[in-house]
Amino acid sequence: MYESPLFWPAHIKDRVLYVLDETLVPAKIKYIPVKNIKGSIKVIRDMKTRAFGQFLVVLNTFLLELNPRGDLLKHLQKVAHQLNNSRPTFPFAEVTGIIVGVAQKARANGADVKTAVIKTVQGFLQGIYHRRLERVRQLADSIDEGDNILTHCNVSGELAMAASLCIKKAKKISFFATETRPYMQGSKLTAWELQQAGVAVTVVPDNTVGSLMADGLINKVVIGSDRSAANGDVANKVGSYQIALLAKEFDVPVIVLTQPSNKVKKGQDMPIELRDPRELLTFDGKNLMPKGVKGFYPGFDVVPHALITKAISIHAGL
Amino acid sequence: MYESPLFWPAHIKDRVLYVLDETLVPAKIKYIPVKNIKGSIKVIRDMKTRAFGQFLVVLNTFLLELNPRGDLLKHLQKVAHQLNNSRPTFPFAEVTGIIVGVAQKARANGADVKTAVIKTVQGFLQGIYHRRLERVRQLADSIDEGDNILTHCNVSGELAMAASLCIKKAKKISFFATETRPYMQGSKLTAWELQQAGVAVTVVPDNTVGSLMADGLINKVVIGSDRSAANGDVANKVGSYQIALLAKEFDVPVIVLTQPSNKVKKGQDMPIELRDPRELLTFDGKNLMPKGVKGFYPGFDVVPHALITKAISIHAGL
Repeated sequence: MYESPLFWPAHIKDRVLYVLDETLVPAKIKYIPVKNIKGSIKVIRDMKTRAFGQFLVVLNTFLLELNPRGDLLKHLQKVAHQLNNSRPTFPFAEVTGIIVGVAQKARANGADVKTAVIKTVQGFLQGIYHRRLERVRQLADSIDEGDNILTHCNVSGELAMAASLCIKKAKKISFFATETRPYMQGSKLTAWELQQAGVAVTVVPDNTVGSLMADGLINKVVIGSDRSAANGDVANKVGSYQIALLAKEFDVPVIVLTQPSNKVKKGQDMPIELRDPRELLTFDGKNLMPKGVKGFYPGFDVVPHALITKAISIHAGL
Repeated sequence: MYESPLFWPAHIKDRVLYVLDETLVPAKIKYIPVKNIKGSIKVIRDMKTRAFGQFLVVLNTFLLELNPRGDLLKHLQKVAHQLNNSRPTFPFAEVTGIIVGVAQKARANGADVKTAVIKTVQGFLQGIYHRRLERVRQLADSIDEGDNILTHCNVSGELAMAASLCIKKAKKISFFATETRPYMQGSKLTAWELQQAGVAVTVVPDNTVGSLMADGLINKVVIGSDRSAANGDVANKVGSYQIALLAKEFDVPVIVLTQPSNKVKKGQDMPIELRDPRELLTFDGKNLMPKGVKGFYPGFDVVPHALITKAISIHAGL
């Protein structure tokens, strides 16, 4: 099976965390060295890595911050707090809470905090790796011979890997990847990954979803999600909601890769991050429109569970 | 009333047709001098001017081609043929057919062909100018106090002018302009025009339409159209169809500026122009995605009449 660099975009080596700079993909495959919490927050805020990559950065950051000057437990609590506040839509607190909890318990039991944290983080990373591979297999099983699949934004390696499994089984499939303005994850990441995996992919403007469906060119939608609510609603890249609504109109099934989460009850409870409108108003640093024009760029929207045909979840364990 | 340069983007002076280069707006207001049919077809194909501007170019081209070496009537027929084949979605044949018909009739009646063509074209231009102003007034009457209006692509001056009429009457209104990928007419033209007209406008990614409507932030949609069918279906910039579908879902009325046309019976009969995928895959000449990735960019889609709440038509006369 093809393994995309986006499947595991951050790894630690010799106390340095190497984070794939997804803003350069596909032109360059370059890793940003991150040495501490400050560097972690920068790669997260600058969206050098996204979704699952951010999760990896958050987890690994605890391994980078095990040798503070003061008390380790207090320091890890501070690290958790900073990570939690780095981006609003992401439930980093769920992960950081577990790590801090492990550290607190170790301290209470007289065990070594550092050892406990290392063991927990490494256990998580190994577990999640295998659970994600399992999700790839389940996704591949949900893709049928002859499927023409629309995808939006980027599913961090898993979609391309599932597609390569399908091709191994000689399933004929093809993909439409939306551009995914304004960040162009579809054009830059998804199209590249699927091409690398040897699968037919065509990039389309976000504006074509309705007419492609009306023309019967799409029979399945596969998207990821950045966050799930207890009732099955998910938050994903802005545009996911209208794609799911259009899919309902044309009876196209919507498959969503999710992760279990019980911190919020329903979609409306998930805060939506408003990105800097400059990301919309400029391209490569060049102004796209006249000065003084305002932009509004919510980074995500909520797909209600009623619009989701099938959720393939990472199984519990985190 | 504010008059946008986009309202009348081509005018003839001393046997030269000056065509507003809409690809440079708003950075520059520059007019391309066009001296003959060859120049006309170039500005049309390169999308230097769009929609109504193309109509103006087509009409004025006959005035540029009144002094051929050979027979004038035969020459005008050739000019009409070339114009008709310049872009598939546009019903240029309807206009060019009328002019050629006038020329034929003049010849048959022993009248001067040149004089007949000049009179007809100038009559059309004057008539259409006043009928478009009338459409602006009707559109202004359809906009109510407190409206938050979503628009897509660009309505060639009329929306901004209608908005300025509303402001004169102290109606409080505001606009969301979709970016309108891949050509960005929304960011570049519509946002600029509305700003010039002194109206509040916010640019949003095409991907936000569904969530803006779900959040109750839009209570009216106003779009133009490039072509109409006899049953009331219209072709407009790709994305219009899904916006209209989403509007139906949220009971948001859709107002469309149309032009009467009886050449085709229904939307499915209108050919949809496939634009060069490079317009999608590159930005400012720079590749946005890896080599070999395919793009699909239909320039237009069809909004069925059932999704149109109110059509404001240019009245007959052409």
